[in-house]
Amino acid sequence: MKKVKVIKIGGKIIDDARKMNKFLDQFARLEGPKILIHGGGNMASRIGKEMGIIPNMIDGRRVTDKETLEVVSMVYGGLVNKRLVAALQKKGVNAMGLTGADADIIRSKKRSKKPVDFGFVGDITSVNTKRLKSIMKSGIVPVIAPLTHDGKGQMLNTNADTIAAHIAIAFGETGSTSLQYYFDMKGVMNGKSVMEILSTDDYHALKANGKVSDGMIPKLDTAFHALTSGVKSVRIAGHQYLNQVEGGTYLLL
Amino acid sequence: MKKVKVIKIGGKIIDDARKMNKFLDQFARLEGPKILIHGGGNMASRIGKEMGIIPNMIDGRRVTDKETLEVVSMVYGGLVNKRLVAALQKKGVNAMGLTGADADIIRSKKRSKKPVDFGFVGDITSVNTKRLKSIMKSGIVPVIAPLTHDGKGQMLNTNADTIAAHIAIAFGETGSTSLQYYFDMKGVMNGKSVMEILSTDDYHALKANGKVSDGMIPKLDTAFHALTSGVKSVRIAGHQYLNQVEGGTYLLL
Repeated sequence: MKKVKVIKIGGKIIDDARKMNKFLDQFARLEGPKILIHGGGNMASRIGKEMGIIPNMIDGRRVTDKETLEVVSMVYGGLVNKRLVAALQKKGVNAMGLTGADADIIRSKKRSKKPVDFGFVGDITSVNTKRLKSIMKSGIVPVIAPLTHDGKGQMLNTNADTIAAHIAIAFGETGSTSLQYYFDMKGVMNGKSVMEILSTDDYHALKANGKVSDGMIPKLDTAFHALTSGVKSVRIAGHQYLNQVEGGTYLLL
Repeated sequence: MKKVKVIKIGGKIIDDARKMNKFLDQFARLEGPKILIHGGGNMASRIGKEMGIIPNMIDGRRVTDKETLEVVSMVYGGLVNKRLVAALQKKGVNAMGLTGADADIIRSKKRSKKPVDFGFVGDITSVNTKRLKSIMKSGIVPVIAPLTHDGKGQMLNTNADTIAAHIAIAFGETGSTSLQYYFDMKGVMNGKSVMEILSTDDYHALKANGKVSDGMIPKLDTAFHALTSGVKSVRIAGHQYLNQVEGGTYLLL
């Protein structure tokens, strides 16, 4: 499997039915082997609140206690995932929703309680590319929710950006893989303008000057890690750019 | 694929971690091709109530408005399904959670609003046995949540007993299939004793005498329908009997 496109959709797009539909139209037209990874954090926060569970975020990452794990399992694995799968089926894409536990595609290890106890959060230990390839070869498009398992019966919450990066890295070992992050901003911003290209040096300079937002730092760290780990191209762009070569930010080592 | 075992687990067992774990131990030991279908109605009612959504049941079937569809998508497709999949993975079963939308395995049609408007409830129109077989042949055990889709982008709520029967009937066309319903009672009861065998005639007599509970009637109607539609054996039994030949009720034409 030569060129796999690993596409992540997140941010406020997930909650916006009209924009999401347009994005999925573009995704449906994308040729070749492809995998969609989705977020859903805003929706999880909203539904959690309805159940009396107040989100607790540290550095933009969700602290996942037992009740929060139930909420994210429901919202990511049930609500968001099945909505996307049904919408893609309508568009002629034979989508299949998966979490890391399904067919054992992504295993993780519960994160150490130190320095910060994030609760039921999993750090990825393996991606089953053989299984994902066999699923894609049968004409199915995996749609992956940001949940993993530890192989010992425990579901764990895992950041969707990180899942996308790990999958792209795992496929990168065998072919030329592209990793594409789409969200509700136009790309990586420098003030009011989109940076068409962002090099490692640029990134360090922006960080030193405090010009990168707190929420963007883990995304960019993850994205650069993928680029240094064999992923051929990494792009961070607005949801409207999926089928265009131009637009958004390409990362450069 | 000669002999597929279609196993449904429902009732209060889903909410009982200890009993569910025992049941899954037995399921893990079951040999040959197998499919697990689960319910989750009690949990959906509980979580819906936490969100301020009061269950509305008619003849033991859930009326599914837009908000209730969100709840059942979350609880069946996310919470219950992923818990079972992770637990089975621990037990060495390569489980994969699926709804009807995933890989387009079960299509349905929104039920007519007359005589009763059940809302977003789907009546099954097709089961993709070819896809299910191909999944099972690759060593994966499907774990199916009671949700289907209409192929036009809409998820629909579909009774788990009915899904199990339709799957068994679809496989029955090509081999000898057994359909097994497990739950929190010991079998079909006649007063305080379990009926080891229940024939169509017995059933009609029990119904005429008002000796079958309202909740049991749709289950038995569905089960007898499967038996008259090519399914080789149908059993309704307590969750503790999965790996025993004796116990519970076998249906007879």
